[in-house]
Amino acid sequence: MPRPLTLSPDRLFPREPFALGAARELYAGVKDLPIISPHGHTDPQWFADDEAFPNAADLLLSPDHYLYRMLYSQGISMESLGVPNRAGARTAEPREAWRLLAANYHLFRGTPSDLWLKHVFLEVFGIKVALEAETADHYFDAIGEALQTPAFRPRALLDRFNIEVIATTESPHEDLVHHRKIIADGWGGRVITAYRPDPVVDPEHEAFREALPVFAELSGQDIGGWQGYLEAHRIRRAAFAAVGATSTDHGHPTAQTADLSPVEAERLFGEVMKGPVAPETAELFRAQMLTEMARMSVDDGLVMQIHPGSHRNHNRQVFETFGRDKGADIPTRTDYVRALKPLLDRLGNEPRLSIILFTLDETSYARELAPLAGHYPVLKLGPSWWFHDSPEGMRRFREQTTETAGFYNTVGFNDDTRAFLSIPARHDVARRSDCAFLARLVAEHRLELEDAHQVAGDLAYRLPKKAYKLP
Amino acid sequence: MPRPLTLSPDRLFPREPFALGAARELYAGVKDLPIISPHGHTDPQWFADDEAFPNAADLLLSPDHYLYRMLYSQGISMESLGVPNRAGARTAEPREAWRLLAANYHLFRGTPSDLWLKHVFLEVFGIKVALEAETADHYFDAIGEALQTPAFRPRALLDRFNIEVIATTESPHEDLVHHRKIIADGWGGRVITAYRPDPVVDPEHEAFREALPVFAELSGQDIGGWQGYLEAHRIRRAAFAAVGATSTDHGHPTAQTADLSPVEAERLFGEVMKGPVAPETAELFRAQMLTEMARMSVDDGLVMQIHPGSHRNHNRQVFETFGRDKGADIPTRTDYVRALKPLLDRLGNEPRLSIILFTLDETSYARELAPLAGHYPVLKLGPSWWFHDSPEGMRRFREQTTETAGFYNTVGFNDDTRAFLSIPARHDVARRSDCAFLARLVAEHRLELEDAHQVAGDLAYRLPKKAYKLP
Amino acid sequence: MPRPLTLSPDRLFPREPFALGAARELYAGVKDLPIISPHGHTDPQWFADDEAFPNAADLLLSPDHYLYRMLYSQGISMESLGVPNRAGARTAEPREAWRLLAANYHLFRGTPSDLWLKHVFLEVFGIKVALEAETADHYFDAIGEALQTPAFRPRALLDRFNIEVIATTESPHEDLVHHRKIIADGWGGRVITAYRPDPVVDPEHEAFREALPVFAELSGQDIGGWQGYLEAHRIRRAAFAAVGATSTDHGHPTAQTADLSPVEAERLFGEVMKGPVAPETAELFRAQMLTEMARMSVDDGLVMQIHPGSHRNHNRQVFETFGRDKGADIPTRTDYVRALKPLLDRLGNEPRLSIILFTLDETSYARELAPLAGHYPVLKLGPSWWFHDSPEGMRRFREQTTETAGFYNTVGFNDDTRAFLSIPARHDVARRSDCAFLARLVAEHRLELEDAHQVAGDLAYRLPKKAYKLP
Repeated sequence: MPRPLTLSPDRLFPREPFALGAARELYAGVKDLPIISPHGHTDPQWFADDEAFPNAADLLLSPDHYLYRMLYSQGISMESLGVPNRAGARTAEPREAWRLLAANYHLFRGTPSDLWLKHVFLEVFGIKVALEAETADHYFDAIGEALQTPAFRPRALLDRFNIEVIATTESPHEDLVHHRKIIADGWGGRVITAYRPDPVVDPEHEAFREALPVFAELSGQDIGGWQGYLEAHRIRRAAFAAVGATSTDHGHPTAQTADLSPVEAERLFGEVMKGPVAPETAELFRAQMLTEMARMSVDDGLVMQIHPGSHRNHNRQVFETFGRDKGADIPTRTDYVRALKPLLDRLGNEPRLSIILFTLDETSYARELAPLAGHYPVLKLGPSWWFHDSPEGMRRFREQTTETAGFYNTVGFNDDTRAFLSIPARHDVARRSDCAFLARLVAEHRLELEDAHQVAGDLAYRLPKKAYKLP
Repeated sequence: MPRPLTLSPDRLFPREPFALGAARELYAGVKDLPIISPHGHTDPQWFADDEAFPNAADLLLSPDHYLYRMLYSQGISMESLGVPNRAGARTAEPREAWRLLAANYHLFRGTPSDLWLKHVFLEVFGIKVALEAETADHYFDAIGEALQTPAFRPRALLDRFNIEVIATTESPHEDLVHHRKIIADGWGGRVITAYRPDPVVDPEHEAFREALPVFAELSGQDIGGWQGYLEAHRIRRAAFAAVGATSTDHGHPTAQTADLSPVEAERLFGEVMKGPVAPETAELFRAQMLTEMARMSVDDGLVMQIHPGSHRNHNRQVFETFGRDKGADIPTRTDYVRALKPLLDRLGNEPRLSIILFTLDETSYARELAPLAGHYPVLKLGPSWWFHDSPEGMRRFREQTTETAGFYNTVGFNDDTRAFLSIPARHDVARRSDCAFLARLVAEHRLELEDAHQVAGDLAYRLPKKAYKLP
Repeated sequence: MPRPLTLSPDRLFPREPFALGAARELYAGVKDLPIISPHGHTDPQWFADDEAFPNAADLLLSPDHYLYRMLYSQGISMESLGVPNRAGARTAEPREAWRLLAANYHLFRGTPSDLWLKHVFLEVFGIKVALEAETADHYFDAIGEALQTPAFRPRALLDRFNIEVIATTESPHEDLVHHRKIIADGWGGRVITAYRPDPVVDPEHEAFREALPVFAELSGQDIGGWQGYLEAHRIRRAAFAAVGATSTDHGHPTAQTADLSPVEAERLFGEVMKGPVAPETAELFRAQMLTEMARMSVDDGLVMQIHPGSHRNHNRQVFETFGRDKGADIPTRTDYVRALKPLLDRLGNEPRLSIILFTLDETSYARELAPLAGHYPVLKLGPSWWFHDSPEGMRRFREQTTETAGFYNTVGFNDDTRAFLSIPARHDVARRSDCAFLARLVAEHRLELEDAHQVAGDLAYRLPKKAYKLP
């Protein structure tokens, strides 16, 4: 007899009756609001071509590093989980990989992955039994069948999930072909892009040398000189904006910025182009480029997102075999106060500039980020991110930022995911977590219920639209 | 119909019935205890001259950087809020500035400013409606009228607020004229000062070069030499003690101390006096002066307060236009373990020395400060400070320090404010927060209610008197 | 009338009725499980000779730096508490020292020491009145009498405490005589050792120069050369394993590792042996030795424990008078991400290697340790440690590690104590704290009660046995 799969309507709410009542009431006011997903990593080809997804393992397990890194940490090989190696080759049968997840599902107890997966299984696929070794095949078959039906095509799911707008992320050397098809098919404005220049801005990015010529070609610029290189960015930013982008995204190792003179910047650019580049030179170039990007944002209005602080590809052996983004990125201590000063000295009070800061270093919430965002007009705080996209992470974020930065220097939730089917689950966790936090404030007489309703709606829907300048 | 303004008698208490009952009972035992305010920044001239305060905006908004920095962060100009520029000029009408606060009051949801202001509005002024755009003029008029009555003069408020003793902060080059008048008028011992030597100790302080000659004159010393300079400090410390000072206060960028030989110290002093001074030299001089001040405290018994870790005037443009203390000071990571060692190696076990440590870096609570204060006889922990003077900040402080340092290596609450009317509100938040923490310990059977009563009274009244050596 | 001494059966549980019910139920399932104590500092001679302990003060106060550091922090001298100086001399009468503890027992309000002591007094000695000045002599006499009875001999207490296995800690230059006697007496496997090589690995350890020749003699190796030195480790590790060791333990100032070539390592070893050694050289040698120890663990299967981040003997004067381990060790910021990379690059994916990481820097839980342990198969997380071995410390540990690393990359509880009588109290606090955390997850519908039961038993009993490879 398999165990039933259940999801309590009160999940993530406090248990104390008054606060529970307040949380329920607040959540009732926001649970059906459309989803705004202004920052994520879904594949635009899904929405352009609208083809059926493959099986459960290829959809839910092998691309999800939250899942396979946990299994790998317990000695289960990445090969056996169907994770493709650098050459794209895989050795596991999808059904066998899925069985491994099922047999080891207890590892996810207490994790957000468990919350998200249960939501997907129950709400998206209607499965009624818990995932365990005995039910692995039932799951694999039921999901596989559902995925072949029209109701599970990407565009149908966009409708069913009530996603008003979703942003993908592309880089300047990508050609936006899928986004143009999306617009041609009438889905423009609903599926948009974001400008992520890391591969042509970070001399230590593995794709840097190959991306530059494509960047030059797509922009039609001679990028051999500093001015041409900057102009190429302006041109590509405009092309991204033309397919709906309202933001840029910068995933640097640190938050360092710089404000060099034009002559120094030009000399630095020359050094970078010549290569090879010392780590300090690479850091300085990234730092200068954040300020250049901010300057362009003043002109073209794109909202800037800065996501620093990850030591990428920490596991050498895994990187060599499987490549990047394999669950081996580890956060590091991150300074914002000194790092951002050059940019802020130049542009910190610019009315047309808006910068959204993220962190993987929670110690910066109360100490650095909330004081910065609670003062500088150009700064806002992105939601708790990646490892902190979780009930405890969201609670710490609100507890540590609200008293100094308030709610209105934050921007609502980002799902930041490539796991398309989990998007409703992730936004639901965020809405529930925020309602639970607000309910506590109401229960402790720190906020009136009427005001809490307003804040809940702002966080779930209105603030992300405003912060990302969505129509 | 404006909304009513209410303050629940149970605010900040846990909602669960047992803990709520314990919190109520504990709070009942401390709520009417006199206020001890051993560290703050009220203006002694208020108490010396006892003149009426001006209008609502000039009393409550334009001097309060907690308020205008939040409004500024949302794009409202400092000029429009009546914040004076460096020349002291202002362009806003007070009533117009007040209306801006009222119209944007929702920005303060969930912040301690909201708790403090509501307390001031309701308890001090007796206002019954919430602050919003529609009630802005009603507030401005009602507060303006009240301020013209004798009951709202500074000395009357000292009585009404049940303030047993309040310390202001002056620097060695200030002449203490107001404090002498206060003593002459019979308010000595009730309004006292504290010795804050930063302007004559920190070579990077903007007033350093102008303050030194005044310091020399007031002390009657030739401060051209190291011994004369030290003697000038001894003389001014004695003059401060004569008008009631029981403590010194040191707001350095870091907690760094040094213990140079007399010869090295003299040479360093010579370098500093000659100027200009490299950053490392300035840091070393401040570091050495902390140890010199500690040595003097062994002799004269003044309690030492160290408040490190703020990056002052982070916003270059705001600093250039409006000057210092404009809500643009941002905390930084702060080390105590290595930084304090030179001073502690010299004086860490001195029975006559008492040093109260503050931090803006909460990560140091459990890791560094509680272990240091839980061992060294000279060290005590000041309360959660500045950005952390808030319900969540106080909760984290107690949760992260109590298990290692206990309650008796802490010193009760400091309001640290220049917002005189908010002092009862701030002490009330602190008393409620501590009672809520104690109630949780009682509810979890970690502390007996009888002992919790004792601790609550110690934290609210007895420990600050003892820690600051108040009679 | 002395106050009664009581211990609520619901201590450390949440008060809200549903969560309280869940916590009670979970705790009922684990409270009587045998104690696994895989990491601690009890004296093996106690179990080898099985002689009576002396009086209350010599058993419970003068060896417990948690107690006397708190008293010392409030100005009570170490001499008066019976703490022996470097020469082993003591000036206090045990009864007088005990009276000082009793008269100042209020200092421990809210600390884990209070929880542990109450448990010892009530559960181990059956005392019914609270400790205070008036009951000091009653305590001293009652405890003194009990200790002379057979039921309070070390082996009888091992039985009564239901300790299935307890590990002591010895160094390579210690001869394991007590452990051989323990085995001869039939207590082998129940009292085991652990290999702590710091004194022969850390050139800055005060015993380094004296320990080396003994190490050479006990191993029968010429340790003048790098290969002989490594071989001596292999031989001593085998000797430790022969008396039950399943783990090694490394208490370095930092977590730094290195992966030098054999030639570089040999040259570094030569430098270290010649002495004196610069701090960077000492750090590099410790770093390299962690990697060497890990390599040996791949061969002999001993589990590696790394406990970094303590600034030892911070109080110079206390160190000079009383020596090491006197409550003056202060935690420091600790990096793991960069520090561990050399070792992990070499051995991070080795199936036979298991490394348990501890920290005194709680900021690393969510930022570094959980992401590392949630990915690398060789890494597990030790419990909240030392200053964080407490209800709040355990709560923060679970809240900050579970969402990323899950429960199954943690290893249950370590008491890490030399206070033998407090072992049941410490494990009880850990079991209650974990049950309280699990009960909250159940109450918030984040974990099913059935699964929580399983996790509670894993954390209390099954995971430590598995992680430390105990039979």
